[in-house]
Amino acid sequence: MIRPGGGQRAQVVGTGLIGGSIGMALRQRGWVVAGHDIEATRAERALQLGALDAVGYDSEALVTFVATPLGAVVEVARASLARGGVVTDVAGIKGPIVAGLPHANFVGGHPMAGSEQEGVEGADPDLFEGTTWVLTPAESTAAPAFAAVRAVVTALGANVVELPAARHDDLVAMVSHVPHLTAATLMNMASDAATEHASLLRLAAGGFRDMTRIAAGHPGIWPDICVENRVGILAVIDQLASALGEVRRVIAGEDRGALLALLERAREARVNLPAGAPPADDTAEVRVPVPDRPGVVAEITTLLGELGINIFDLEIAHSAEGDRGVLVLVVDAATVEVVRSSLNSRHYRCSVRRLGQ
Amino acid sequence: MIRPGGGQRAQVVGTGLIGGSIGMALRQRGWVVAGHDIEATRAERALQLGALDAVGYDSEALVTFVATPLGAVVEVARASLARGGVVTDVAGIKGPIVAGLPHANFVGGHPMAGSEQEGVEGADPDLFEGTTWVLTPAESTAAPAFAAVRAVVTALGANVVELPAARHDDLVAMVSHVPHLTAATLMNMASDAATEHASLLRLAAGGFRDMTRIAAGHPGIWPDICVENRVGILAVIDQLASALGEVRRVIAGEDRGALLALLERAREARVNLPAGAPPADDTAEVRVPVPDRPGVVAEITTLLGELGINIFDLEIAHSAEGDRGVLVLVVDAATVEVVRSSLNSRHYRCSVRRLGQ
Repeated sequence: MIRPGGGQRAQVVGTGLIGGSIGMALRQRGWVVAGHDIEATRAERALQLGALDAVGYDSEALVTFVATPLGAVVEVARASLARGGVVTDVAGIKGPIVAGLPHANFVGGHPMAGSEQEGVEGADPDLFEGTTWVLTPAESTAAPAFAAVRAVVTALGANVVELPAARHDDLVAMVSHVPHLTAATLMNMASDAATEHASLLRLAAGGFRDMTRIAAGHPGIWPDICVENRVGILAVIDQLASALGEVRRVIAGEDRGALLALLERAREARVNLPAGAPPADDTAEVRVPVPDRPGVVAEITTLLGELGINIFDLEIAHSAEGDRGVLVLVVDAATVEVVRSSLNSRHYRCSVRRLGQ
Repeated sequence: MIRPGGGQRAQVVGTGLIGGSIGMALRQRGWVVAGHDIEATRAERALQLGALDAVGYDSEALVTFVATPLGAVVEVARASLARGGVVTDVAGIKGPIVAGLPHANFVGGHPMAGSEQEGVEGADPDLFEGTTWVLTPAESTAAPAFAAVRAVVTALGANVVELPAARHDDLVAMVSHVPHLTAATLMNMASDAATEHASLLRLAAGGFRDMTRIAAGHPGIWPDICVENRVGILAVIDQLASALGEVRRVIAGEDRGALLALLERAREARVNLPAGAPPADDTAEVRVPVPDRPGVVAEITTLLGELGINIFDLEIAHSAEGDRGVLVLVVDAATVEVVRSSLNSRHYRCSVRRLGQ
């Protein structure tokens, strides 16, 4: 049904950041894309920005992407299914949507992609490159519909993960929703305490900044997500409360051994957390302690770039206290000795660890 | 007592990362530094690395820095006080230490500085530059002793924050200890869930990575800190449990308005969280959405460096989902238009916000 080449037709309903990015990415791959938005000016703007070939619906579209806010997805998708073709959506939770759309041609989807920009102005054809895109086929979903959506999403550069809708919702509660709510809660607690003790925030170093960074995001989409996924979120909040209760018990009992074991286990798990990008078969992590200033990052990345070293992943890990940090680079394991000696030649120390073996 | 010039004498007991860095920083400023470590080879190594002028005690030292592990501080400081001079320490909690050392010449201290490196091999004379260094004088502390320690610490480039010991311990429980324990707890929960659902960690995007990054740190110092500061930590854990209970209530009640207000408040607080470095009087934050790859950071920091733009702070904020990020730069507000136009010329969009006004 979906051919690798161009000339095929798709449509996008809801031409914001995600819908616009899908339109741009599809057009870049030769698709012809129609688009509709409840606000006509938004669709016109998407057309101007090159996210669409035409404003309106296309009755010949093979695939319709419903990229409206969560609350409108079921209704919009139902109308799209009535017009024909395969329909998928991009909402951040899947259970209620899949339950509301028991149709052979509907496939729930969730691209794990976002941007700080809002609206079609922030749309980007490369937004999905290398990201995880969850698809949640139901029993009602026809195999050809699922195959079609999988093919399009894969063509956009995303890596498909297939999950039952309820499982998806439980997992994102664990790795996204509750962490976000916890970051916001910690930030609010510190902020409240800081009104009484002004020096508190001067004691908040890199670790606290990392912990709470996600709380700086736009909260607009979160109330709907939290309400729709409340069952999964409440279960994870309860699990967190219980786990913190266990930490409390260990500390109250002055059980240094159990505390060390708990922290060692977390360290091991975090160090082995896969990077966002799919790792190469044989990579190594290079950790370079650096002063927390930008010239250093530029110097090191430029140095490695000149040597032709491909950096798969990069992050700056602030130390728990103070203004030092560690530049963490993931590189091809075969290049590690070149990386090490070139860093040493610039007087940077580094430690190296093989990954993915 | 402490003169701005060189030739004065200090000593360090415990020549690890912090003790070694203090020795190097003092020697760079013309001090003569003796050092002792319970492991003789460690003191010899510190001498080799230039952290000390001599191994041993110096009965003429004006100031002694006790930089041993937490559990040994009181005993070592007592012995140092008996030898004379002013004595300070660098342990991460202060209440029990200050209580155990009711002496006119003792001043509790805590440099908010660390490094991923361990031991004197990671020592660095610039470790304290621009960091917060808490001093916790007690009623027993003599004013000249406090003035002496304040002068030395300031000379090392740190910004002194004066706090009662108990207040220090409560505040670090809030901004350091409990966030660290929470990160470890979230990481362990996700890791446990991932053994059953292997795809879980593929759904963990930048936000989760930020939240849990601190859990990757070496846990060695934490059991002692948590046990000694258990009262403060348990109070903050209880406060967090209660705040999460309130979040739970809001979500269970499907109260979208209250949830939005909670998240908006956290966003406001996080956006206004001061950067680690002391901000200039008039700075601006420039946020540049970027693909999450290192060439971009090098390109932008090099570009601004060539224009002579001083970057006060830099961080990469991963988006909540996917592999995009935002490069957050803090620059002199007077340079904002130059920054904006040079970024635009390279086709980067950016948003700008004045800080500290």
